[in-house]
Amino acid sequence: MAKYVHYFGNGQAEGDASMKPLLGGKGSGLCEMTKLGVNVPPGFVISTETCKYFYDHDRRYPDGLEAEIDANVRRLEDAMGATLGGDPPLLVSVRSGAALSMPGMMDTVLNLGMNRAVLDRLTKRTGNARFAWDAYRRFIQMFGDVVMNVDRHRFEAELDAVKKKSGAARDTDLGAAQLEEVTNQYLRVYREATGQPFPEDPRVQLRHAIDAVFGSWMNERAVKYRQIYKITGLLGTAVTVQAMVFGNLGDSSGTGVCFTRDPATGENVFYGEFLLNAQGEDVVAGTRTPQPIRDLEKAMPVVYKQLVDIKNRLERHFHDVQDCEFTVQEGKLFILQTRTGKRTARAAVKIACDMVAEKMIDEKTATLRVDPADLDQLLHPTFDPKAKKEVIAKGIPGSPGAAVGRVVFTADEAEAKGGAGEAVILVRTETSPEDIGGMHAAKAILTARGGKTSHAAVVARGMGKCCVVGCSDITLDLDKKQFTARGGVVVKDGDWISVDGTSGEVVLGRVPTVDAELGAEFEKLLSFADKFRTLRVRANADVPADARMAHRFGAEGIGLCRTEHMFFEGDRILAVREMILANGVEERKRALAKLLPIQREDFVGIFREMQGLPVTIRLLDPPLHEFLPQEPEAQAEMARIFNTTIDVIRKKVNALHEFNPMMGHRGCRLGVTYPEVYDMQTTAIFEAACAVTREKKSVIPEIMIPLVGSVAEFDFFETRIRQIGKDVMARAGVNVAYLVGTMIEVPRAALLAAEIAKSAEFFSFGTNDLTQMTFGFSRDDSGTFLPAYLEHKILADDPFQTLDRDGVGRLVKLAVTEGRSARPTLKVGICGEHGGDPSSVAFCHEAGLNYVSCSPFRVPIARLAAAQAAIQGKAAKDAAL
Amino acid sequence: MAKYVHYFGNGQAEGDASMKPLLGGKGSGLCEMTKLGVNVPPGFVISTETCKYFYDHDRRYPDGLEAEIDANVRRLEDAMGATLGGDPPLLVSVRSGAALSMPGMMDTVLNLGMNRAVLDRLTKRTGNARFAWDAYRRFIQMFGDVVMNVDRHRFEAELDAVKKKSGAARDTDLGAAQLEEVTNQYLRVYREATGQPFPEDPRVQLRHAIDAVFGSWMNERAVKYRQIYKITGLLGTAVTVQAMVFGNLGDSSGTGVCFTRDPATGENVFYGEFLLNAQGEDVVAGTRTPQPIRDLEKAMPVVYKQLVDIKNRLERHFHDVQDCEFTVQEGKLFILQTRTGKRTARAAVKIACDMVAEKMIDEKTATLRVDPADLDQLLHPTFDPKAKKEVIAKGIPGSPGAAVGRVVFTADEAEAKGGAGEAVILVRTETSPEDIGGMHAAKAILTARGGKTSHAAVVARGMGKCCVVGCSDITLDLDKKQFTARGGVVVKDGDWISVDGTSGEVVLGRVPTVDAELGAEFEKLLSFADKFRTLRVRANADVPADARMAHRFGAEGIGLCRTEHMFFEGDRILAVREMILANGVEERKRALAKLLPIQREDFVGIFREMQGLPVTIRLLDPPLHEFLPQEPEAQAEMARIFNTTIDVIRKKVNALHEFNPMMGHRGCRLGVTYPEVYDMQTTAIFEAACAVTREKKSVIPEIMIPLVGSVAEFDFFETRIRQIGKDVMARAGVNVAYLVGTMIEVPRAALLAAEIAKSAEFFSFGTNDLTQMTFGFSRDDSGTFLPAYLEHKILADDPFQTLDRDGVGRLVKLAVTEGRSARPTLKVGICGEHGGDPSSVAFCHEAGLNYVSCSPFRVPIARLAAAQAAIQGKAAKDAAL
Repeated sequence: MAKYVHYFGNGQAEGDASMKPLLGGKGSGLCEMTKLGVNVPPGFVISTETCKYFYDHDRRYPDGLEAEIDANVRRLEDAMGATLGGDPPLLVSVRSGAALSMPGMMDTVLNLGMNRAVLDRLTKRTGNARFAWDAYRRFIQMFGDVVMNVDRHRFEAELDAVKKKSGAARDTDLGAAQLEEVTNQYLRVYREATGQPFPEDPRVQLRHAIDAVFGSWMNERAVKYRQIYKITGLLGTAVTVQAMVFGNLGDSSGTGVCFTRDPATGENVFYGEFLLNAQGEDVVAGTRTPQPIRDLEKAMPVVYKQLVDIKNRLERHFHDVQDCEFTVQEGKLFILQTRTGKRTARAAVKIACDMVAEKMIDEKTATLRVDPADLDQLLHPTFDPKAKKEVIAKGIPGSPGAAVGRVVFTADEAEAKGGAGEAVILVRTETSPEDIGGMHAAKAILTARGGKTSHAAVVARGMGKCCVVGCSDITLDLDKKQFTARGGVVVKDGDWISVDGTSGEVVLGRVPTVDAELGAEFEKLLSFADKFRTLRVRANADVPADARMAHRFGAEGIGLCRTEHMFFEGDRILAVREMILANGVEERKRALAKLLPIQREDFVGIFREMQGLPVTIRLLDPPLHEFLPQEPEAQAEMARIFNTTIDVIRKKVNALHEFNPMMGHRGCRLGVTYPEVYDMQTTAIFEAACAVTREKKSVIPEIMIPLVGSVAEFDFFETRIRQIGKDVMARAGVNVAYLVGTMIEVPRAALLAAEIAKSAEFFSFGTNDLTQMTFGFSRDDSGTFLPAYLEHKILADDPFQTLDRDGVGRLVKLAVTEGRSARPTLKVGICGEHGGDPSSVAFCHEAGLNYVSCSPFRVPIARLAAAQAAIQGKAAKDAAL
Repeated sequence: MAKYVHYFGNGQAEGDASMKPLLGGKGSGLCEMTKLGVNVPPGFVISTETCKYFYDHDRRYPDGLEAEIDANVRRLEDAMGATLGGDPPLLVSVRSGAALSMPGMMDTVLNLGMNRAVLDRLTKRTGNARFAWDAYRRFIQMFGDVVMNVDRHRFEAELDAVKKKSGAARDTDLGAAQLEEVTNQYLRVYREATGQPFPEDPRVQLRHAIDAVFGSWMNERAVKYRQIYKITGLLGTAVTVQAMVFGNLGDSSGTGVCFTRDPATGENVFYGEFLLNAQGEDVVAGTRTPQPIRDLEKAMPVVYKQLVDIKNRLERHFHDVQDCEFTVQEGKLFILQTRTGKRTARAAVKIACDMVAEKMIDEKTATLRVDPADLDQLLHPTFDPKAKKEVIAKGIPGSPGAAVGRVVFTADEAEAKGGAGEAVILVRTETSPEDIGGMHAAKAILTARGGKTSHAAVVARGMGKCCVVGCSDITLDLDKKQFTARGGVVVKDGDWISVDGTSGEVVLGRVPTVDAELGAEFEKLLSFADKFRTLRVRANADVPADARMAHRFGAEGIGLCRTEHMFFEGDRILAVREMILANGVEERKRALAKLLPIQREDFVGIFREMQGLPVTIRLLDPPLHEFLPQEPEAQAEMARIFNTTIDVIRKKVNALHEFNPMMGHRGCRLGVTYPEVYDMQTTAIFEAACAVTREKKSVIPEIMIPLVGSVAEFDFFETRIRQIGKDVMARAGVNVAYLVGTMIEVPRAALLAAEIAKSAEFFSFGTNDLTQMTFGFSRDDSGTFLPAYLEHKILADDPFQTLDRDGVGRLVKLAVTEGRSARPTLKVGICGEHGGDPSSVAFCHEAGLNYVSCSPFRVPIARLAAAQAAIQGKAAKDAAL
């Protein structure tokens, strides 16, 4: 006969931690602790298989289950020396618990076993009538709500009426007499709502409670929760029936929570708090201030010693920081729960490293212990958590960090004031490439429009600068030089604000910030990670300074150097604009000749910084209109500089206007229509590579053609590039090994990967654009509908943040497989924003990519994420063997 | 021993038409005619296998080939009673000819066998020294150029010098003496360029000529030609050596071309022209006016009778109209070539139908005989081919047909004047949905921007109205109400112009046009086609009038009814704008309530017209900004109507502005953010369907959700649609069968087709958008770079015209296969512009789609193309078995 019920108590248990699928997380944890000799209130678990049987058989239970439950109730009664409904009375909790945590989704009943007779006995035994009535009324409410679906507001209305009548502000202000009155009203409500009297028989109570908990497995919110989090393959929930213990039976009782180490700092000190003569709820409710755990040593020396002993045992047993709930009932210590303790990023890093030093865990485990996404906290300044803040707007977190400064509304002002050392925050409706200088000079950027991958966010992340985008709470009035925020708050030019790029909050005034600190432990943890990962991590960097930072963060190369970002610095834009205004090839070539030495010097700088690591350089990508001024004053200024009329400038701007520039005349399409532009860039790359080679330094340039959609397109450029390379190297008299490859960013390129790989030596997935085109979502415009998609759960994640495995990911995998089938040595990487997102990094590892490339500040995150993916991937593979 | 050389002559031939792969098109044709008893100058073919051997063996010939050639030369000499280099002298032509025609790509040498001695004999035999010298100098030039790579300009310079000296305007003005001088100069040029004297020995000439022709198989232009036209699998070229005959040996000689039927009208009359005492070149050169073929009966009654007999035999033999070249040498008729005769679309249709009636071909063959693309000529008016035209600009042919009218520059004016019965042509930089009324009222539309799938072109094709787009030759000046065309021609408001939407030509003044005529034969041909095709053909139609036309052209349903096109008619736009300006759901619902009865009536009209055929209705698709006026005056007018300020209107317009509207807030994304809009449309569809059902008429609505990218998105709408359907039908008390499906237009939808097909009952590929997103090409902007792509052959075709099989087609096939695997009954169609393109229709047939849908005017084209694809597909399948 199958066994459905598993007992635990008095150091014995019919189960352990390994039986999570059968006994659920809670049940198996209680069994494990019991076996460890930890004093856990005894009880029993009705298995998840019972739940499966229940649903497979039209909500009937297996034969013999009732007898099994009865036998276990008797065993529990024996262990506790108390009986359900008897004297001394036994009270139990009935709780749900599946193999995976589904917090708050299913039902729980506490204080089961209460009735009128038990109330009297409890009052007599504890001498505490208030306690007994409170337990009774709570049970009625919980049972009515959870088991019988009585509207909980009907109970609450009665409680409120009694409180009002007796002038009590809080529940705790009510005495035994008032609670008796509440209880009587509850019994009436129950009778009226259900048409039956409240069940006095604890066995009947128990049967109904077990039904309700199993029933809650299929309630609407639990089903929805499993859908959303894609939880499948579970048998069902288990039901744990456990003796209740009480911390509120006088001064030899109490309750508390403790951590085996400090979860804020990670220090190896006992941490926690407790309350004498209290229940767990009282700690949560905050009506009394708990005492630090140290004080327990004085209050209950024996219990404290037991607790320290237990916490040490639990941490050693589980090899991780434990977060324990305990109750002392009349001098006796019970542990109600232990679980892995949540911690700050800083603590996580320290604990992982300490535990390796203590030989409690190995380096692999340490690597898995830190959530890569949390590292952001350590890499950027944050608001002082203790500071008071008046939040006047909330936008989309564009780039993490916190900053304080005075509001400016134009890039020019930001450059002027920021350059003079003033702390300014640039506030714009949206930014454009023209604003780069101002963005660089500002402490933070705040925009009213745009999403996580808007220009402002992308550039800010590249600079490691705090940025909040798509902040629809603010409305700019540039004429008045001010913006209006929530509640009509008006912020004027020069006012102080504080911006949190991690939360998206905008705060009026100056909020103190806490600086980032990268300690030795941070480096240590990454050194562990590097031992396990197989995926290489590169950085996106456009100028030598970024390259230097990338190198410092451990980047193993540049995965994306956007040549156009160099075009905005200082006076360079003039040469670019001259090139755009040029009439015919010859004029254009003259303008390009001015850019050549500038580009060459940039590349020389980057090659030197990267010290022989590969550098992927993307040829000009954005549409030309981005290089022209859009506003009349700036157009007039440009006309003046070029000694022409504003009409000429405006006509050029209009001619370059596009309906959908994202899918317009950009990328290598510019190279087809103006080959001389790419020729100039290619020449600059090779001349720089030759120059650095002649310094006896190693250089690995990888020339990348953007937006390719067919092999014919690729071949058109490859021929020219190789010819220029040959010519430049012959002139310089040195030889430089280089690769020519392409970005895969239009879906067609992925579909034609086998063809393209016949010519291309590497692929770099531009997953920003690939996501835009695969979904048909313009990232600059998706702010108007993406929030609704996430709200309605039509999309689980923002696909610009977390790579969409089903659609975009399918194209990536297809291109990798088919590309490598045509060219086994094909080097494959990713250089979209996803390169710094841990879940996307894991995908890249699974898809067999050679590297990911992300902004320098995300390199540590990617290193850790790649290591975790490698460890977990290997574990999954080993398990499958 | 292998046989490499195949003789033909005197009614015998070592080959026939079936041996095309071995003997090439020309060679096998000559053999076939010889066997038919047609008098063809004898000769022999050196097979394509020889060519293969030649290239497989480092340009050496197989053993024994020379002996085989010698033997055949002797056979030819015997047949002709003349010898190479002897007396009477034999002259031969040496020509290339592969199994597939590659016109002009490979080499030919004529008059081979000429030398000084032969010249004298020829002069003596013909009494025509001029003829002999001319033959000699032509041979030297051709041999020098083709065989020895002497720059042809060097010869031409000598010819020009002699012409100048002797005051001759044309070659034909030169006499024997001058030609002798030219010949001597040619011999000198040849010697200087090659370092050798001109080979006098005809055997040596022949060997070199054969080398040259085989060598030309791999010349650059031939290789490129095969690449471009994807010609693979050929063995090589054959070489045909054939006796020369001369039509210029006096008045008993002559030359001509003839067609077995009139290629212009298709009438079954003998058609052609001839010249007495002339060579083929003289007909081509146009120096003398040829006589109609009828006159040959009088001039050479015997020859004429022979010719009529032969043309009848050839047409009966080849079952198709033949285009023959003939030469009469001293009273003897020779047929030099016969091939299928080119014909006009009108002729093609008539000939196909006549030949079926004459039992010369079957209906299947007749169906294959007409190029579907040519049907356009028959469906629209054209310029009178005899009219003189001053072309002032040329743009992209947007929608076929020809029209004449006075220029107007605004839609309002077009509506006012056109409505009053005036013929106007609407000239715009580009059109927008606001212009619909004016486009409808105009005879034609001419735009300076946009491509084949721009708004103007798409709408015009839907209306069957002539349209030229992307006409960069013209520059509009709206202030002066005029445009400037090629050569600075200024066209003012009210001036007459003529527009040809088939060629893209814009002509100053009024060009007479010829009306379209759809005769009984046209219907007959389509009735043949309908017997073979398996692919259904539907039409895109938005209003009842279009639906009526679609039905008349044989559409088997509506594949795309764009509900938003209804929004622009008359005052409807006001209700739409009220809906857009609404603050909150309730105001929006009030505005939508005004639209509901209007939409319902539209659907009632369409359902009635379609008489029980399926009607696919797409819910609102375009971004809302398209419904608001963009120009200040119109915005002011709107503000007046809605009793608000222009500022409010402008703010709304700005709020709706998008960077990339194509990938922005449109399609079902509008339905997610404003579900009440789709609810209203759904209600209108069901109410209309119920109303028509109650008239005892059959209705099959297919509700289509645009721009879906995931099944969750689809499900969001399907639930609402089914609920509304249930409610409306319950209220109406009738039941209507309907389908709910989606457009597949973002790549992700194709990639997730298996998931989406679990919910969707049909797919309709929106290949316009799918092409845009797969390539990342904005169709409205691609005019700036697509021409360069086509010019550089980076793309073989404009992917917006001809469906890209490799990229977009792969997604389509994948979605069909995976969609049907999830739902075997999935109905699959296409409703993009490609639905009317013959090559794309063939693809749709191959991909197993259920139907294509195109603009009503293209329905006949699609019907014919689908039939041809079915016939050819079946033939290919049968061949493979």
